[in-house]
Amino acid sequence: MGACYNLAVKVAELGEFGLIDLLADIAAENSSGQPVIGIGDDAAAWQSDAGLNLVSVDCLVQDVHFTLATATWHELGWKALASGLSDIAAMGGRPRYAVVSLGLPGDTEVEDVVDLYHGITELGQRYGVSIIGGNISRSAVVFIDTTTLGEGDKLLTRSAAVPGDKIAVTGSLGGAAAGLEVLQKKLSLLDEETSACLRQSLFQPQPRINEGQLLVEHGIKAAIDISDGLLADLGHLCRASKVGATVNIDSVPINPAVKKALGNKALDMALSGGEDYELLFTADIEIIEDARVKTDTPVTIIGEITTDSDSRIHLADKNGQPYCPASVGWQHFTGKS
Amino acid sequence: MGACYNLAVKVAELGEFGLIDLLADIAAENSSGQPVIGIGDDAAAWQSDAGLNLVSVDCLVQDVHFTLATATWHELGWKALASGLSDIAAMGGRPRYAVVSLGLPGDTEVEDVVDLYHGITELGQRYGVSIIGGNISRSAVVFIDTTTLGEGDKLLTRSAAVPGDKIAVTGSLGGAAAGLEVLQKKLSLLDEETSACLRQSLFQPQPRINEGQLLVEHGIKAAIDISDGLLADLGHLCRASKVGATVNIDSVPINPAVKKALGNKALDMALSGGEDYELLFTADIEIIEDARVKTDTPVTIIGEITTDSDSRIHLADKNGQPYCPASVGWQHFTGKS
Repeated sequence: MGACYNLAVKVAELGEFGLIDLLADIAAENSSGQPVIGIGDDAAAWQSDAGLNLVSVDCLVQDVHFTLATATWHELGWKALASGLSDIAAMGGRPRYAVVSLGLPGDTEVEDVVDLYHGITELGQRYGVSIIGGNISRSAVVFIDTTTLGEGDKLLTRSAAVPGDKIAVTGSLGGAAAGLEVLQKKLSLLDEETSACLRQSLFQPQPRINEGQLLVEHGIKAAIDISDGLLADLGHLCRASKVGATVNIDSVPINPAVKKALGNKALDMALSGGEDYELLFTADIEIIEDARVKTDTPVTIIGEITTDSDSRIHLADKNGQPYCPASVGWQHFTGKS
Repeated sequence: MGACYNLAVKVAELGEFGLIDLLADIAAENSSGQPVIGIGDDAAAWQSDAGLNLVSVDCLVQDVHFTLATATWHELGWKALASGLSDIAAMGGRPRYAVVSLGLPGDTEVEDVVDLYHGITELGQRYGVSIIGGNISRSAVVFIDTTTLGEGDKLLTRSAAVPGDKIAVTGSLGGAAAGLEVLQKKLSLLDEETSACLRQSLFQPQPRINEGQLLVEHGIKAAIDISDGLLADLGHLCRASKVGATVNIDSVPINPAVKKALGNKALDMALSGGEDYELLFTADIEIIEDARVKTDTPVTIIGEITTDSDSRIHLADKNGQPYCPASVGWQHFTGKS
């Protein structure tokens, strides 16, 4: 293995990202072919005579990523495919097909599974994605494992950011995390419209397919989708690119409903909340401006890539005052930042 | 939907295959593109400028497909990939890449996950398959979801059998099901060598990659892999092809260790036991004979495809006496034939 790992620990102690690094090393060492992009980016890529092929896999697990008490099956279907489409978007690719592997308890209602599939196909149709295969297993907990296949010409990657690049994000942030707080009744005093808006951010995210392709067309090379949270995903990008970053917290685009719901806690939610599925990308300012005028989707510059092999991220307000957020993102196993 | 379904039932009442048919209908109705093969064959296929692309997904779920008390993590890794490779083999394809989505409890030992990955990559290397992506989720039960990607020129399908075709199978049958009985201590009086042989049939099946390609090269068109059991999978093929079949039970190749372990119950295990991952295929006798001499793998003719739109399978011994097996295969949710 490339790095040195202590194997005599539990998965929860090593954490999700440590485990991914470890398994990526094993996979790369035992690789027979040479993929263009292996484990560690939003999607894997390989070259065929027809061009670049992309594949990504994501999973929603009951009582980890959702509860059946708060999510509808239709919402789960939409969300399951959305995370895969977002991975393809973050590579600048065109999604084409998906396969869905379901784990279901035997007493699941067939009507619910049909609703789940309608949630998947409703989003799929919007982006020309067909469900071409699947698997069904009996399981004590529901899980929805979605593999998304796509194609591309050039790719966006996490490892292409260079010092001096501006950092930009699409859309606005914090909505999905605030939607989760609505479900958990931590934000029960909201008006109905704000509640509905936040719930939609959580369960019906809009993968940035067209925006990802626009970035590629404009020569942008570095991107990641914001699934773990702005700071966590910027951290992934910085480590993959071996660079650091500065972020101006006053520039971070906060979802208006989050501002309304959370007041002065909204910034931390926009910095650390996951599952918004916006794109974070870096490039020369001129290239970003060129791309920005070609889309109705908001594009906001929030900072700059710096020279720093330790990949530190510095947060400051517009006056240069350092800022320390409450947390920086979510890890599956440790449940901590 | 093409067919008429009663949706007000539980998944366990509809059964695995009924649910697959229902979801396949929804997927096909909402399809944006036109795959060459959609849900319902061993793998899905679509055409690109580079040729035919194949994808298959399979899942192993703790306490449904395996228990950690009886399987090693290395064996689980091997088996997880083997079932996907077997699907590609059953289409006559060449497997190239796999992505692995894991569900793991937080207290899983990292060493165990490493063993799992070594089981996957050991088999992968044997057939030139690289693990290029994956996902890790926290989950109350372990699951291993494997998506296998491949390519092909012409395809074997379940729907290409025609009346008059001979039915042939590779290798021998019943080993995996008998291996499960060994684990469950139903066959505890066996000698060590026989036990080890049956355990290997269960946990280290050899996907028939080379054999599948050989069949395609010889112009054979109809095949399926034996994952649910000989009779169940022959049933799948007959329904997809809208034909029937006769099987001579005295010709069925029974795994020698199963004969030794089970005596006169061995035939039923060979007819109904799943997870042997042999290939069942149909063609003119001359074509089968031409292919047979090109491989060291045993190829046995066991019956003939008949004209029968109800897709009935008739079993008889060499004297024409009808035979009624104990059961015909395994369905996930109902746990019955």
